[in-house]
Amino acid sequence: MNCESLNLNSRQFVWSSLTKAEQDALLQRPVQGTSATLNSTVSTILTAVRDQGDAAVIGYTQKFDCAQLTSLSYSAAAIARQIAKLPAKTREAIDKAYSTIRRFHEAQQPQDIRVETAPGVTCELRYAPLSAVGLYVPGGSAVLPSTALMLGVPAQLAGCPRVVLVSPPDQQGELSPALLYAAQRCGITEIYRCGGAQAVAALAYGTESIGKVNKIFGPGNSYVTAAKQAVSQDPQGAAIDMPAGPSELMVIADASANPAFVAADLLSQAEHGADSQVLLLSPSAAIIDAVGQQLERQLTTLSRASTARQALASSALIQVESLAQAVDISQRYAPEHLSVQTAEPDQLAQQLTHVGSLFLGPYTPESGGDYATGTNHVLPTYGFASSASSLGLVDFYRRYTSQKASREGLAGLASAIVELAETEGLDAHARAVTLRLEASS
Amino acid sequence: MNCESLNLNSRQFVWSSLTKAEQDALLQRPVQGTSATLNSTVSTILTAVRDQGDAAVIGYTQKFDCAQLTSLSYSAAAIARQIAKLPAKTREAIDKAYSTIRRFHEAQQPQDIRVETAPGVTCELRYAPLSAVGLYVPGGSAVLPSTALMLGVPAQLAGCPRVVLVSPPDQQGELSPALLYAAQRCGITEIYRCGGAQAVAALAYGTESIGKVNKIFGPGNSYVTAAKQAVSQDPQGAAIDMPAGPSELMVIADASANPAFVAADLLSQAEHGADSQVLLLSPSAAIIDAVGQQLERQLTTLSRASTARQALASSALIQVESLAQAVDISQRYAPEHLSVQTAEPDQLAQQLTHVGSLFLGPYTPESGGDYATGTNHVLPTYGFASSASSLGLVDFYRRYTSQKASREGLAGLASAIVELAETEGLDAHARAVTLRLEASS
Repeated sequence: MNCESLNLNSRQFVWSSLTKAEQDALLQRPVQGTSATLNSTVSTILTAVRDQGDAAVIGYTQKFDCAQLTSLSYSAAAIARQIAKLPAKTREAIDKAYSTIRRFHEAQQPQDIRVETAPGVTCELRYAPLSAVGLYVPGGSAVLPSTALMLGVPAQLAGCPRVVLVSPPDQQGELSPALLYAAQRCGITEIYRCGGAQAVAALAYGTESIGKVNKIFGPGNSYVTAAKQAVSQDPQGAAIDMPAGPSELMVIADASANPAFVAADLLSQAEHGADSQVLLLSPSAAIIDAVGQQLERQLTTLSRASTARQALASSALIQVESLAQAVDISQRYAPEHLSVQTAEPDQLAQQLTHVGSLFLGPYTPESGGDYATGTNHVLPTYGFASSASSLGLVDFYRRYTSQKASREGLAGLASAIVELAETEGLDAHARAVTLRLEASS
Repeated sequence: MNCESLNLNSRQFVWSSLTKAEQDALLQRPVQGTSATLNSTVSTILTAVRDQGDAAVIGYTQKFDCAQLTSLSYSAAAIARQIAKLPAKTREAIDKAYSTIRRFHEAQQPQDIRVETAPGVTCELRYAPLSAVGLYVPGGSAVLPSTALMLGVPAQLAGCPRVVLVSPPDQQGELSPALLYAAQRCGITEIYRCGGAQAVAALAYGTESIGKVNKIFGPGNSYVTAAKQAVSQDPQGAAIDMPAGPSELMVIADASANPAFVAADLLSQAEHGADSQVLLLSPSAAIIDAVGQQLERQLTTLSRASTARQALASSALIQVESLAQAVDISQRYAPEHLSVQTAEPDQLAQQLTHVGSLFLGPYTPESGGDYATGTNHVLPTYGFASSASSLGLVDFYRRYTSQKASREGLAGLASAIVELAETEGLDAHARAVTLRLEASS
């Protein structure tokens, strides 16, 4: 495909003029390649790490990241040396983001619940921080301090006893100063220089130097995603935060929207990767035209224009009949990011529940949520926003229950328990009650 | 195996006298057979239901449940006819259980959160009930009204717009009066007579008569479990409540415990199935002996003694050095049900966080929680209690976030967003901010 020749006009549609099949096709996500080859590579890596531990992880790090390490761990001195290189400006930006993210997640602290459900019977819902969590931060050529904050802040606030961060090193075997500073702000000291499926395997199963964790958080490439999925299916493995897919943005805009703002948002999503999907829904033909023109204009000065153009090739600017129709389409698509640039965004937002995160009004660009408004940028993609939740503080806790009955409490429930146990044909269940009451009567 | 000849004495161990490998083996769960045959059968069923819809579900219901149906749906008149058969005693038991379960889950109602994270920047955490949920209740020969309550009460309290219940019919094509009454109490009117992998497929993908749901809840046999796992991996499928495995109980008892109570609890777990696992941890050799004797005595009058004996064959009564050691072992094993029958159960419970549900003190049999204390009996098994949560009201909601910035709010965050976007090499992210501020300055 010659990316430069893409005609964005060809991506403009009128929803009501499409057949049902064409509508379905337009909202179809790009198919994700979980090829047999990929799964087999990941399976080989998982087995190698389980069998050979650190040696396998170090070997794959050499093979995939071109870094020659003698140890996966990262000394406090080496970390301090790297952090010292960080410009003050970046440090301040991380501090600012840390403070807003912390403020929003702090408010999510869960509370234990205690209820007397019947006289003498008390039930509790309790929260405990996960004992050991693994935070995966993509790296290598990319530097993603923001992801370290999005995972590290809630882990810190939950008070997880063990917080482990892994990230693939650069060819010199180093992690970026920005990443390390973000980790330091979150109080993370257990850091390993590895990434990919091998890092996921190390977190899930443990190696000589990396202790096993209970749950793995964070985004990654298709190998990381496949490895996370595999270990989450294995009772000996680890839980994971959520299913993953490429990033996506939907914008709902009415005639009051600023086309330059809308186009800037669509491009900020499109530059993420060729598989990013961006969709605009508007009842205004004029807005759709104007956004199309703005896209062309803004693309000309974008460093990642080629990537953005590829993403735009499978995206769409859709003219709808009404904002109500836009709501219906959005609920069906369930976008990761949904920007609402209409005259009354708060009102419309009440009906928009199948989303990862909402961005309301003209001055709330999606990139604000990526970094610094305070919401978490780890969000359900690929339609999972109709069932999965956005990452939050409670994901770093486990919920469990507890109950305690007095003799009188048990006596009050006895007839119900015995009757239901007998209905279900479970004698011993009934007897665990009757025997107690007989013994103490 | 001749079950009747099992010598329970052979299942008594002294923890400190075991090697590390023997200790590991003792806490090993029975291996679950997700054989290639099972997976291939489930895969065939999923494909058939996707391709042929109702016809496939009806066909499998005839094949596996020996019920000949012309329609999967269940008319209000037919349901009322069945419910009329229910004895008043069972109805009252269901009413009692409904009220305690409702009371405990009502207290779990989540609250939206709104925080000003920086001047002019407001972030929200919002909860919306899942749009459509599928409740799977095992059936056929077994009658499980309690599971209908455990799934139906939170679905009702969350206010999910669509609640669908499926359960395999008996050979006459009927569901049990107790199940239907429990469903009616929970306000469920959309009921289909199907079970197994075919019911999971119908819920996940939809058929002519059964509309697709977003999330599937409830326990089932190995086919149901495999089908749930498969559809949860498919972006076109549905989310599921939690990973599943056979039921299990651990009891921690000290010298103050009543051996008859402890044995009754162990047996109530053992009668569930041959693959159930029961473990007793006690620092008292006398208690272990006495529980062993009580097990033998109580087994003689149990209708499901043969099943219970099979389960006991892979279970263990373990003498520990101290309650502290019992806590360590329990945290490592992460039992679904944990009964604490010690002099100070509340104190010990503070340290016991890797559990599905805790049962504290002598008058809180595990069977109480199965039916009527108010806690949910859908719990993480098979070691997943170190990472997964017990089923609760919030599992019937989605959490998502929202943010809104004023122009001034965005201006206050701008330097941080732009700096981080540039650090991460994402131009368009920065420009979505600068362009807005330039346009309106």
